[in-house]
Amino acid sequence: MKKLFDWGIRASWALPMNGEVSVENDFFLGVKGTDIAFAGPYKPSHKTQSKKFIDAKGMVLLPGLINAHTHLPMTLFRGLEDDVPLKVWLFERIFPLEKEFVSPDFVKTGTELAALECIRFGTTTVSDMYFFVEDSAKAWDKAGLRGIFGQAFMDFPLPEDKKLGPDHFGRFHALRKKFAKSDRIQIALSPHAPYTCSDDLLKKIAATSKETGALLHTHLSESVDEEPESLAKFGKTQTERFRDLGVLGPKTICAHAVHLTPSDRQILKDSGTAVIHNPDSNLKLGSGVAPVAEYLAEGVRVALGTDGSASANDLSLFGVMDLATKVQKLTHNDNTAMIASQALWMATQGGANALNLGDQIGSLSPGKKADFILVDFNFPHLQPVHDPISHLVYSAQGLEVDTVFCNGKMLMKAKKHVSLKPAAIFAKAESYRKKIRAFLAKLKAS
Amino acid sequence: MKKLFDWGIRASWALPMNGEVSVENDFFLGVKGTDIAFAGPYKPSHKTQSKKFIDAKGMVLLPGLINAHTHLPMTLFRGLEDDVPLKVWLFERIFPLEKEFVSPDFVKTGTELAALECIRFGTTTVSDMYFFVEDSAKAWDKAGLRGIFGQAFMDFPLPEDKKLGPDHFGRFHALRKKFAKSDRIQIALSPHAPYTCSDDLLKKIAATSKETGALLHTHLSESVDEEPESLAKFGKTQTERFRDLGVLGPKTICAHAVHLTPSDRQILKDSGTAVIHNPDSNLKLGSGVAPVAEYLAEGVRVALGTDGSASANDLSLFGVMDLATKVQKLTHNDNTAMIASQALWMATQGGANALNLGDQIGSLSPGKKADFILVDFNFPHLQPVHDPISHLVYSAQGLEVDTVFCNGKMLMKAKKHVSLKPAAIFAKAESYRKKIRAFLAKLKAS
Repeated sequence: MKKLFDWGIRASWALPMNGEVSVENDFFLGVKGTDIAFAGPYKPSHKTQSKKFIDAKGMVLLPGLINAHTHLPMTLFRGLEDDVPLKVWLFERIFPLEKEFVSPDFVKTGTELAALECIRFGTTTVSDMYFFVEDSAKAWDKAGLRGIFGQAFMDFPLPEDKKLGPDHFGRFHALRKKFAKSDRIQIALSPHAPYTCSDDLLKKIAATSKETGALLHTHLSESVDEEPESLAKFGKTQTERFRDLGVLGPKTICAHAVHLTPSDRQILKDSGTAVIHNPDSNLKLGSGVAPVAEYLAEGVRVALGTDGSASANDLSLFGVMDLATKVQKLTHNDNTAMIASQALWMATQGGANALNLGDQIGSLSPGKKADFILVDFNFPHLQPVHDPISHLVYSAQGLEVDTVFCNGKMLMKAKKHVSLKPAAIFAKAESYRKKIRAFLAKLKAS
Repeated sequence: MKKLFDWGIRASWALPMNGEVSVENDFFLGVKGTDIAFAGPYKPSHKTQSKKFIDAKGMVLLPGLINAHTHLPMTLFRGLEDDVPLKVWLFERIFPLEKEFVSPDFVKTGTELAALECIRFGTTTVSDMYFFVEDSAKAWDKAGLRGIFGQAFMDFPLPEDKKLGPDHFGRFHALRKKFAKSDRIQIALSPHAPYTCSDDLLKKIAATSKETGALLHTHLSESVDEEPESLAKFGKTQTERFRDLGVLGPKTICAHAVHLTPSDRQILKDSGTAVIHNPDSNLKLGSGVAPVAEYLAEGVRVALGTDGSASANDLSLFGVMDLATKVQKLTHNDNTAMIASQALWMATQGGANALNLGDQIGSLSPGKKADFILVDFNFPHLQPVHDPISHLVYSAQGLEVDTVFCNGKMLMKAKKHVSLKPAAIFAKAESYRKKIRAFLAKLKAS
C-alpha cells in the first residue's frame, strides 16, 4: 500500500471548525510534510496509508488553539504579589521588576517556560508583545511553535533600549528581514497603548503597517480610567482617536476593548479591526467585561487571549473559553448570551482570522498547516460524553491535552513534551525566582 | 526507632489552615489511625518514625477540600443540552430525564462517577442533596469519602417516591439510624427550596432539625425570578420567610443566596446561617453573583460548592475558588475585593465550619481527621513557585492533585485511584449515556 501520509490520526471525535462548529465521529486526519493532506471520516485503509499512526480512542481532535494576546516571558513573574491594589502591583512591583530583570536571557527563559505551558495546554499559535523580541521569537521557533511577535513602541524608553538602542523602527525592519523566510514566525508592530503613544508615533506605526503588511497589535480601553482620560486629553474616545490616526483596519488587533461605546463598536466593525478578549486577566485585575456578545452579534471580529501570566496566572485557553461564556451569561442575565461553540470558534478559526492567518491555520482541512491537538476525555470529569463541545469548554481544564502537532511536527505525545526538556527550563526559572525574591525583599525594605 | 505514625508525609510546602491562611515550608504530617497525630516542621527523625513515608517534593500539602453544595448523581447528565434557554433545559430536559432515569442504580452509578472525580480533584467532603439518598451515601461510603447526604423534601412527589413511598420524614429518621455509627456519613434534612415547600412543611423540617441536631441544607434565592415571586406570594423575601418559619440558624446551610438585600444579609448573620456560594453554576445558568465580599466583610458564614455537574459541568473546587475571587473583583471593580487566601479558607476550614464539622476537618492539626491532599506543582503553569496560595487559586486546575487521604486512608496515589476502579464506572456511565440519548431523541421528536 502506498504511504500517502507521514502521520495518520484516528480520533473518536473531531471538531474540524470548517464554517460551523460541529462534532464528527470516528475522524481521520492525514498529515504530509507540514500540511494536512486529508480530513474526513475514518476508513480502515487510512491506517495502512500512514507511515506513523495514532489511534486516539476516547480523544477529540481539534485545531491547535490560538492565543491572540499574551506577553510570554512574564511567566517568570507568575503569581508574584497578587492581590495587592492594582496600582501598587503595576507601578511598585511589576515595573521595577521589569527594569531590573528584563534581559535577553530572562526573555528566553520566560518564553521557554511559556512554550512548555502552551504546548501542555494545546496552544500552537500566539500573538505576543514584550521586549527583546528576537530572543523570544528564537526560543519560540526552537520549541516548534507558531507565533507573531510584536516589536514594542511607546513614547518612553523600553527596558530593552539600554542594550539595543532607541531605534524601534529600525529594529522592527531588521527583525522582519531576519524572520522573512520563516514559515512559523512573523514580526508585528506593537504600539503599547493609546495612553503611552503620541499621535505622531501612532501615525508612523500605522503607515508602517500599511507599507509592510505587518500586523499591528496593541492594547485598547483596558482599565476603567482610560476612556475618561482619553476624553479629557483628546476630546475623543481611544477608539475614535485610533480611527482618526489610521491605526484601525483588518491588519490591526486590539487587546481588551472593554469600555467601548456602541459607536466605538461600530467603528471597529466598519474598519474590520479585530478585538482580542482576555476575560481571565480583565476579571483578575478588576478591569471589567468586554461586550463580547455584542461584538459577536454585530459582526466585530473577535478572538481570545490569556494576556500575560503575571496578570491571569496561566496560559490555558480552556479556562479562557469557559470564563468568556460565563461572564457574558452573567452580564446579560441570559444563559444563551454566549455559548460554548462560539468560544471554541474564537479560540481556533476566529483567532486565525483575527491574526490574518485564516488561510493557513484554525481548521482541519486539506492544504492547511498541520497544527492540531488531541484532548483526552478518559477522565472522570469528562464522562459520560454527551457533548464534546460542552466538555471542551465547560469541563476540560487544559491538562487533558494529550498530543500536540504544529506544522506537521509532533511537540507532545501522551502528555510528555517531545520538543523541549521541562527539568532544565524549570531549573532556570527557579534561579530567576530566587533573584527576584531577593530583589523584592530589598525593594519592600526601601 | 518507635513507629509513631502509620503514615508520614513530608511536603515542600503546606497550608495548615489554622486560624490564618499561611504557607509553611518543608512540613511534616504524621497520621495515626484515622487522625492527624503531628503537624509541623519536618525533622529527619520523622521519616524513621513513620511506617510508610511519602516524600512529596515540589508538592503542597493542604486539607482535603470541602464541596458544601452539590447533587452528586447528576454527573450522568453532565454537558447534556447545555446552552438552550434555562427554562427549556430545566423543564423540558432535566425534569423529564429525572422522571425517566432516577433509580437506585442511576444514583449509585452517578455517585461512583462523582466519587472518582472528587477524589481526582482533591475533594474529600461533600454536602449532597438528591434522591435515593441511601444508595448515594452507600456508594460514597464505599469510596472512602466523607459526606452529609440530605433527604429531600418538597410539596410534590419526589422521583424516588414511586419506589420508596411518600413518607419523607420516616425515611429521614430511618437513614439517620442506619448511618448513626458511621464516622464519615451523616444524614441531613433537605427541603428543596422556598418556592417548592409550604410553610407547614418548612416548620416541621426546622423543628426536626432542632430535635435531632441534623444539618438543614436548602436552596435560597438562586435565580432572578425567585424574590419577586416570594414578595408577591408571601409579602416577604425568601430570607424573611425562612426566618419567620424558624428555618435559619447555625445548623442551616443555604445554597446560592444570590439576590439578598442588605437586610436579608443581616438576618443570615444574626441567625448564624451559612451561605454556600456556587459561582460556576450561578454564572453558567445566568443566575447572578452572590454578594460574597459583603458576606465575608459582614461576618456571614460562607463556604463553597460546585452545585450539580449538570449545571456547572464539573466538581472541581479549584475552578470554583478561582471564579469566586474573580467575579467579586469584577462586580466591585476592585482587584482586592476577594483574594486567593479567602477562597482557600472557604474551601477548607470555612467549609468545615459551615457543615458543623469544624472540630473534625478543615485544617491540618493534631486530633483532627486525616483528610488531606498533595497538589503537584511540577507543571509548567505552576513554575516558578513565587506564591503557593496564588498558584492554588489562580493557576491550578484540579488535575494537579497527586495524592488524597480521607480518614487516614489513602484514596489516590500518584494521580491513580486506589479505592475505586475507573474503567468499570466509566462503562456503566456510558451505558446510561446511550439510554439517555435514545430517550432524548424520542422526547424531542414528540
